[in-house]
Amino acid sequence: MRNIMIKIEYDGTNYNGWQIQPNGRTIQQEIMVALKNLTGENANINGSGRTDAKVHARGQVANFYTASSIPIERFPIAMNHFLPEDITILEAREVSNEFHARYWAKGKRYSYHLYNHPQRSALLRNYSYHIPYSLDLDKMKEAANIFIGAHDFKGFMSSGSNVKDTIRTIHAIKVNKENNSIWITFEGNGFLYNMVRIMVGTLVEVANHKRNLNTVKVALEEGDRRQAGHTAPPQGLFLDNVFYPLTH
Amino acid sequence: MRNIMIKIEYDGTNYNGWQIQPNGRTIQQEIMVALKNLTGENANINGSGRTDAKVHARGQVANFYTASSIPIERFPIAMNHFLPEDITILEAREVSNEFHARYWAKGKRYSYHLYNHPQRSALLRNYSYHIPYSLDLDKMKEAANIFIGAHDFKGFMSSGSNVKDTIRTIHAIKVNKENNSIWITFEGNGFLYNMVRIMVGTLVEVANHKRNLNTVKVALEEGDRRQAGHTAPPQGLFLDNVFYPLTH
Repeated sequence: MRNIMIKIEYDGTNYNGWQIQPNGRTIQQEIMVALKNLTGENANINGSGRTDAKVHARGQVANFYTASSIPIERFPIAMNHFLPEDITILEAREVSNEFHARYWAKGKRYSYHLYNHPQRSALLRNYSYHIPYSLDLDKMKEAANIFIGAHDFKGFMSSGSNVKDTIRTIHAIKVNKENNSIWITFEGNGFLYNMVRIMVGTLVEVANHKRNLNTVKVALEEGDRRQAGHTAPPQGLFLDNVFYPLTH
Repeated sequence: MRNIMIKIEYDGTNYNGWQIQPNGRTIQQEIMVALKNLTGENANINGSGRTDAKVHARGQVANFYTASSIPIERFPIAMNHFLPEDITILEAREVSNEFHARYWAKGKRYSYHLYNHPQRSALLRNYSYHIPYSLDLDKMKEAANIFIGAHDFKGFMSSGSNVKDTIRTIHAIKVNKENNSIWITFEGNGFLYNMVRIMVGTLVEVANHKRNLNTVKVALEEGDRRQAGHTAPPQGLFLDNVFYPLTH
């Protein structure tokens, strides 16, 4: 069997998230069905991790095994032929049999899009979090620095996860403003359930002077979800990239 | 009666274009209904011009008369309350009674978005024209220069328009590439029916070496639609701005 790694872009608006479930359309399910139509096989699709309903991806990674002899460079266009227009296979690569998109992942990059304008945006409604009031980006950057490094992010995790080890390392957080859009990018070795969205909600509250920097430190130190900020909505979140060791 | 000028953003994906018609949802109709709900009045909405089905706007302009006493700064949020999420009133201004969004318009700016990548984009499918092959942007810019100035654009107009005077002046065309996106912006004193989309189709053919610069000159000089390029699809087109004299 060949082991195929794929890089996937999707518009999460009309999906119940990545992971197959009894009710609702999911990205994983659509890719399984497309592969079945292409190869006749019922393959498991191992994603690097789940994304929630309405969350987008510009570089989700998954792998699957196949006996098909389709040339590797033909996989993206052949799979896209069977996929709905809001899911695209960007590239495919043949990898060693041991590769697993989740277990081998060494890190991820997420971006979060804030739309900062008095009125909501018609064009960006499904791709941003609308903030109608002014934001102090210097304060936001100061607060973001508190998250850098290795911390126990237990207070920045939604319930519904059974993860035991809640220590994660954040390598970088960048805040960029262009016109009315503010993009916050997060790079780290891993992220807990809703961790990016809770960090964003907390950063927005700091930038809106609803909370001061010290409350962020306290929330992080005490590991208490109630002391962190609100969970920013899913439609502003993009999974940009998943990082792997160079040898696979 | 007060004369109110509004600036409108819309996502054209789910509309049959700007102008009210017997069948299908239109932007103009939605704004009329919202105003009726807000003020109780049946106002005519004068747009600066039509946009086709699936074409977007970041700065369409319209005006209407009202007896309502709503403060001008409240109009955007009050109208947005009654509008669907894919239409937004960005701002409102009280103008002199003579102002008319179409007759007073002195120029417009459109942007056209090409997505240049071997695979289609899931996230940009409704907001770009997918070009899977490589494009020679230097050649595209040379061809764009041919359009600058005052010309008879009869050959760059779709049938279905009863315009007599087909002379238009284009002030500027700019081509910018960022990652996989190419944005072409057009500023001019006015544009014929489908003129921007036919210019884009022609520019794409030049950039793909399917036609040379001389064929563009000939199409312009002979005023023959069959000698110009194809009509680029609507979902890549954005009406950015409408220009008016400073005094109104």
